[in-house]
Amino acid sequence: MKIVLLGSGNVATHLAKALKAKGEDIVQVYSPNLNNAKLLADLIAAEAVDDLDDLKQNADLYIISVKDDAIETVAQSLKEVTGLVVHTSGTTDINTLSSAVKKAGVFYPLQTFSKTKDISFENIPLCIEASDGDQLAILSALAAKISRQVYELDGEKRKVLHLAAVFACNFPNHLYALANKILNQNGLDFEIIRPLIAETADKVMDNLPENVQTGPAVRADESTLNKHLSMLTTMPELQNIYQTLSNSIKLTLK
Amino acid sequence: MKIVLLGSGNVATHLAKALKAKGEDIVQVYSPNLNNAKLLADLIAAEAVDDLDDLKQNADLYIISVKDDAIETVAQSLKEVTGLVVHTSGTTDINTLSSAVKKAGVFYPLQTFSKTKDISFENIPLCIEASDGDQLAILSALAAKISRQVYELDGEKRKVLHLAAVFACNFPNHLYALANKILNQNGLDFEIIRPLIAETADKVMDNLPENVQTGPAVRADESTLNKHLSMLTTMPELQNIYQTLSNSIKLTLK
Repeated sequence: MKIVLLGSGNVATHLAKALKAKGEDIVQVYSPNLNNAKLLADLIAAEAVDDLDDLKQNADLYIISVKDDAIETVAQSLKEVTGLVVHTSGTTDINTLSSAVKKAGVFYPLQTFSKTKDISFENIPLCIEASDGDQLAILSALAAKISRQVYELDGEKRKVLHLAAVFACNFPNHLYALANKILNQNGLDFEIIRPLIAETADKVMDNLPENVQTGPAVRADESTLNKHLSMLTTMPELQNIYQTLSNSIKLTLK
Repeated sequence: MKIVLLGSGNVATHLAKALKAKGEDIVQVYSPNLNNAKLLADLIAAEAVDDLDDLKQNADLYIISVKDDAIETVAQSLKEVTGLVVHTSGTTDINTLSSAVKKAGVFYPLQTFSKTKDISFENIPLCIEASDGDQLAILSALAAKISRQVYELDGEKRKVLHLAAVFACNFPNHLYALANKILNQNGLDFEIIRPLIAETADKVMDNLPENVQTGPAVRADESTLNKHLSMLTTMPELQNIYQTLSNSIKLTLK
């Protein structure tokens, strides 16, 4: 399959490497910043372009992996292509593409990517959607090549998933950062708490989180809850978060 | 070292197994419930007792691993012993013991334990404290046998650590549970989000969380934030949590 990749960010980079490793032919990488396009293109033996007018028109698949609010603009430049055009966004409707191009789809990897950390695509859930069954079959086959978890989800479900991901990823990471803030203010290093973070995540690999909740709130241990709240009087924002989340945990007891 | 263990819960069980594996001699296990005492005692070839009057008086170390509010009562039964008496609590002051017994200490493993999941003690940070230097040396040597991370922390620092642990463990687990609630209400399975949870924790093993924050709040992506909030109108408690944590993430941008 001849693929053109539009974008050079974290998702584009990890996806390009995974596809290349499975023998897919990524012929072009587009970025408005030519240096960024080249950095990625060189990794996968593709051509780098910074002008949408230079895009090859005969590819089988166009993967748009740019910021959500740039998807529509980029799609406009693919009006004439006959290949399938997909985006990789959790929150963007497929109609954003299908109103502009002939064949539209979604290829959304549910994961948190960083430039510096390698990750095996095999374990990344891929959520796919397409404007018709033939295109869905194409995407499904491609997804199965690089991931063991492929889900066919419509836009509504994908948006729900993206919202759940904020609770399961972005918020926990921020709570790790707040824990680090508390530690640092008291001369303690983040290192001390890393094993606890690892085990907390590991526990829910085989259990449902509601069955393995621990801590003072789920024990309704008001004495500890009050001690903790009073330790946070100089950090009202953290105090508010502590109260809000503890109350929410206590609601599960009813 | 002859050890008497008072308690038979998760911490007591994991600690007993780790000590036994390193050749320590746990002679007795006490629990007010004889069956519970026996279940653990049988695993480590110890005697089970359910009466505090039956405790051996000549052990080198007494480990009190019971609920926080029962520590003082249990300690009262160890008034006459000459061995070192420690508790395993993150939030309880050493004075709770030292006012009752001759030699007091703390032996606090910073981890979340469950009955059903085995865990290697080697990677569990052990926080120790003692009423004098000789006892600290004893605890330090014992801790180093079962863990690679031993920290000497006074009560104030240990309490800070326990508070940080709530942010790094109990709250993230509850957020996993809320993510699962959102998924279930929309016919999606928790399985789909497990790889994301694993990667989010794994990322901060080599990074500080504040350096790897992702999601709409840290991008100040108001359009997505508003969409998510409107998806949560039927779940006002989750909407409140979403708003509170997103605001807190945005504060880090200033």
